[in-house]
Amino acid sequence: MAITLYDLAGAEADRRFSPFCWRTKMALAHKGLEVETIPWRFTEKDVLPQPNQGRVPVIVDDGRVVHDSSAIAEYLETHYSNHPSLFGDATGKALTRFVQNWTETVLQPGLVGFVVLDICRHSAPKDQAYFRQSREERLGTTLENVVNDREARLPAFRDSLAPLRRTVERQKFLAGEMPAYADYVVFGAFQWARAISDFELLAADDPVAAWRGRMLDAFGGYARKSPAYGG
Amino acid sequence: MAITLYDLAGAEADRRFSPFCWRTKMALAHKGLEVETIPWRFTEKDVLPQPNQGRVPVIVDDGRVVHDSSAIAEYLETHYSNHPSLFGDATGKALTRFVQNWTETVLQPGLVGFVVLDICRHSAPKDQAYFRQSREERLGTTLENVVNDREARLPAFRDSLAPLRRTVERQKFLAGEMPAYADYVVFGAFQWARAISDFELLAADDPVAAWRGRMLDAFGGYARKSPAYGG
Repeated sequence: MAITLYDLAGAEADRRFSPFCWRTKMALAHKGLEVETIPWRFTEKDVLPQPNQGRVPVIVDDGRVVHDSSAIAEYLETHYSNHPSLFGDATGKALTRFVQNWTETVLQPGLVGFVVLDICRHSAPKDQAYFRQSREERLGTTLENVVNDREARLPAFRDSLAPLRRTVERQKFLAGEMPAYADYVVFGAFQWARAISDFELLAADDPVAAWRGRMLDAFGGYARKSPAYGG
Repeated sequence: MAITLYDLAGAEADRRFSPFCWRTKMALAHKGLEVETIPWRFTEKDVLPQPNQGRVPVIVDDGRVVHDSSAIAEYLETHYSNHPSLFGDATGKALTRFVQNWTETVLQPGLVGFVVLDICRHSAPKDQAYFRQSREERLGTTLENVVNDREARLPAFRDSLAPLRRTVERQKFLAGEMPAYADYVVFGAFQWARAISDFELLAADDPVAAWRGRMLDAFGGYARKSPAYGG
């Protein structure tokens, strides 16, 4: 039986842009597990199965509900331990957390400054007021102000990718010859931007763009087939 | 027979401050291998065994010369494969490179701006002119100018440690329950600063300072016993 995933959707039901849901979808593909996604909007807190924290991803696997992308990755690794590993050994798992923490303290906060207004514009109409109000409160200014100088911030953003760039110009994936959860965490952030915004973050000759291309091609082009404004 | 390590020394022969040599020394301790260090100065290019690139670390193991900290780590992992692993499995090894690339593109360039003048002051007298000239050429200004506003740059430097901080506040070491090469790479940078400068980089209650303390305690306090100006 396929695993059910509640997956954040935009104005169109098939526009799926949550970086955290992308972590889960790539992890499910890595494990070779079938998934049925249910489009979900920010304001549909009530429709999520219990327990949840009002956010996605939430999965239901044969009656078991698991929420939070990190908890889902742990669950999949434990319950499908005879499928390909998401983390490798204990060292690989511990170091995956460093990559995740880099993604959450450097990459994702950086991306917000480029795409947050596009997220609002392309969200479901019923989500837009909620999204704008909650994000403007968190960011302390209007969404328009946040993205206003994004062209000027692009060089510094690209510089901030140096650890990623230097790694993927020397090996195919962060996890080595084959991608693993560390790649999915970083890729989830880029796929978020790509799904919701046409603003090009990377120079065409950036090794990070080549790695992103390899990730888009993974699992038969799974992520590339998903509706996106970005290239 | 002990492995010989050519190890960068300061004005005093026992002040050892190279971040790359510290990677090697911690890796040797991890492998449980005996080492005899030979103090070496920047300008003693001629005394290094061949082949070398005019830099340390260089090791000699039973007649085999290996230079460059990354090549030495590879050598130790391969030739002492029945000793504790530096990397874990293939995923762990690949992700260690991300940590190394973060160290070399974020952490070490950040540290230079705090300690480069102290390195010059505490280098061997015969090294000081060489060090000043080569570094001022690389940095495009005087060493005094580089460190001039270091107090003002401290908050941004501490912010740049967010991926490290978030990881080591949730697990003991980057590599998990026990340190491994990823920890030694990052620690090498902090030990470099500590050995050569009394400028305190970390707030006392920073989880990074607690992790640094655990690293100083490792292997019977091996790194803590080495002469340092920092705490």
